[in-house]
Amino acid sequence: MSADNVYKLIELTGSSTTSIEDAIQTAITKASATVRGIGWFEVLNTRGHVENGKVAHFQVTLKVGFTLE
Amino acid sequence: MSADNVYKLIELTGSSTTSIEDAIQTAITKASATVRGIGWFEVLNTRGHVENGKVAHFQVTLKVGFTLE
Amino acid sequence: MSADNVYKLIELTGSSTTSIEDAIQTAITKASATVRGIGWFEVLNTRGHVENGKVAHFQVTLKVGFTLE
Amino acid sequence: MSADNVYKLIELTGSSTTSIEDAIQTAITKASATVRGIGWFEVLNTRGHVENGKVAHFQVTLKVGFTLE
Amino acid sequence: MSADNVYKLIELTGSSTTSIEDAIQTAITKASATVRGIGWFEVLNTRGHVENGKVAHFQVTLKVGFTLE
Amino acid sequence: MSADNVYKLIELTGSSTTSIEDAIQTAITKASATVRGIGWFEVLNTRGHVENGKVAHFQVTLKVGFTLE
Amino acid sequence: MSADNVYKLIELTGSSTTSIEDAIQTAITKASATVRGIGWFEVLNTRGHVENGKVAHFQVTLKVGFTLE
Amino acid sequence: MSADNVYKLIELTGSSTTSIEDAIQTAITKASATVRGIGWFEVLNTRGHVENGKVAHFQVTLKVGFTLE
Amino acid sequence: MSADNVYKLIELTGSSTTSIEDAIQTAITKASATVRGIGWFEVLNTRGHVENGKVAHFQVTLKVGFTLE
Amino acid sequence: MSADNVYKLIELTGSSTTSIEDAIQTAITKASATVRGIGWFEVLNTRGHVENGKVAHFQVTLKVGFTLE
Amino acid sequence: MSADNVYKLIELTGSSTTSIEDAIQTAITKASATVRGIGWFEVLNTRGHVENGKVAHFQVTLKVGFTLE
Amino acid sequence: MSADNVYKLIELTGSSTTSIEDAIQTAITKASATVRGIGWFEVLNTRGHVENGKVAHFQVTLKVGFTLE
Repeated sequence: MSADNVYKLIELTGSSTTSIEDAIQTAITKASATVRGIGWFEVLNTRGHVENGKVAHFQVTLKVGFTLE
Repeated sequence: MSADNVYKLIELTGSSTTSIEDAIQTAITKASATVRGIGWFEVLNTRGHVENGKVAHFQVTLKVGFTLE
Repeated sequence: MSADNVYKLIELTGSSTTSIEDAIQTAITKASATVRGIGWFEVLNTRGHVENGKVAHFQVTLKVGFTLE
Repeated sequence: MSADNVYKLIELTGSSTTSIEDAIQTAITKASATVRGIGWFEVLNTRGHVENGKVAHFQVTLKVGFTLE
Repeated sequence: MSADNVYKLIELTGSSTTSIEDAIQTAITKASATVRGIGWFEVLNTRGHVENGKVAHFQVTLKVGFTLE
Repeated sequence: MSADNVYKLIELTGSSTTSIEDAIQTAITKASATVRGIGWFEVLNTRGHVENGKVAHFQVTLKVGFTLE
Repeated sequence: MSADNVYKLIELTGSSTTSIEDAIQTAITKASATVRGIGWFEVLNTRGHVENGKVAHFQVTLKVGFTLE
Repeated sequence: MSADNVYKLIELTGSSTTSIEDAIQTAITKASATVRGIGWFEVLNTRGHVENGKVAHFQVTLKVGFTLE
Repeated sequence: MSADNVYKLIELTGSSTTSIEDAIQTAITKASATVRGIGWFEVLNTRGHVENGKVAHFQVTLKVGFTLE
Repeated sequence: MSADNVYKLIELTGSSTTSIEDAIQTAITKASATVRGIGWFEVLNTRGHVENGKVAHFQVTLKVGFTLE
Repeated sequence: MSADNVYKLIELTGSSTTSIEDAIQTAITKASATVRGIGWFEVLNTRGHVENGKVAHFQVTLKVGFTLE
Repeated sequence: MSADNVYKLIELTGSSTTSIEDAIQTAITKASATVRGIGWFEVLNTRGHVENGKVAHFQVTLKVGFTLE
């Protein structure tokens, strides 16, 4: 992070049927379609849905930071 | 929540002179005027103002989740 | 609480379309059908679902304490 | 809150057989009998007692702020 | 979650020598053998054991929710 | 803890008129009467009752872990 | 706790050269000299001072509750 | 805060080479260029970068509240 | 802190138009007018009010400890 | 953990371009080069950097425990 | 603590088969063999191992502060 | 932070009679005398000592990160 910038932090929840890492990437891909300058993220919590005794999908909530232009 | 969606979470504070439930609904009504797809909320804190020994209004801060289209 | 007893604490989520208090009572009524000696509760979080800009139901998660017989 | 004042915050627990809002008001009414200038409150936790599977009373612990004269 | 149900939440720790996701599935598979209606989970913490400088196994503690029938 | 096991964690409150250590042992003794394989505990909070300016009893709430067979 | 009372909670730190339990009692004894109706306490943190590699005294900070008359 | 308003809270990180107060003002100045009605802030965390044993800049993350018009 | 003393901790909010340090001193100056033996403080949170895009004043909430005589 | 040992806990941040598990192993591999007797870890937080809408690397901060010889 | 010193804080886990106080002293005795100037500690958590329904040993994790010379 | 590095985080408390920023710099200056590669810090808490109603010195506890070479 540069000393001259102001950053905004938003919260997003992404999902994936395969992994926690993939759920993180899903959220960031979606956000990148409308927000420029995303630089980092922090995992706030990791949840998931279960169907018939199997993890159906992981849901990861992130705090995502980007430069406020 | 569907496995295919990405959700955004925002924080709002709603007020009511009558009840905590009404303060929650006030915040959600306001947000629904500009955001589509609000699906759930979580209460973050409950505060209020006091005048002459009476609760003048309740102020409830919510995290509100909606589908990022 | 008596000095001679051991207590167990369990977590429950109750729902209500009308109020937070009713959601608490719903959880305790259900638990009382199978557990004897429920003595107190603590609210852990208050959430809810929203449909068309209206709170559809409140969901209150409780820690509930009862005597371990 | 004014920029010139110093505020003190105290913790109180109020009870009610009917609602969370009433338990809050009960605590503030009691405190107002001896403290002047109560301006706001924040709910710290919400607990309650259960008798025979019914909520007997709600107990709400508040942080209450007032001007230090 | 339906507005008519009451849910119970329990805590479990599952292990895996390969991944965090696998440790989660291990805990849910075990619980599903005795509990019906498991619908979701939340990761509470992620720990692990180390032997000779290698992660020997991951241990993930979950809160798991299911319908109280 | 073994890599092959799944553990369940429950919360208990034990009491003692003499010490915090004794209140912990009281809760574990009680739980051991019905649950096999208790392996560890963690203190969640320590409270107590006071009568006439003396600690009447200590109440210690534990998270207790055991093997899910 | 009775449904009709309002309680006040204060924070105190007591010390002891011998034990955590004794530090708790020290704080409650002191408070009881000026406050009536102390009914319970909760340990907020446990600290201590060390001199020459020995614990010189334990310092326990408590939240103490009493009836607001 | 007025009883009739709904407020939105956003998170921002501002920087300054000189002080924590200046980093706060930097974030608020930037946000005020696009958001009207900012009324208050709360510091969430204070971090900083170090170069050659000197604090190069402070980074303060704020929650900022404004009226939702 | 001496091993023989009992300390009381109170919460205060002080304000300043210039700095966080000045807001701390403002609260302590006010408290010292009525309480003897204040020995230390801990910052609990730092907030502030904004007017026209400028920090109008900082508000710092402190836990303040003093000897209970 | 043996009843006779004293353990030290240190905090480390490891990185990986591929997975959270790999970032954990990276930190432990590095620490094992200078510290003997590492026995377990706990994940404190999971962050990452983003470049052009892709997770560039995961950064996992661990608490790592080892025997103090 | 003196205004002129810089302190370092480290985390240690000590064990004891008899008491929490003894586990604290065990950790500090061990640390004092290699670190000079230990001045205080804070208990971070209290855990223990159970064998055959008895507490086999208490494990107390401390933050320990000492002067950085 | 580079993707190839492992970082260590340590806790330090620095003091200053003048400001929070100066207390931070004091801790970092001291640490830089023995540790190379300090890159960032995070404030964990801000405390201080009071003498005769004046803040005698600020004490700021930091988490400090540096490259593990």
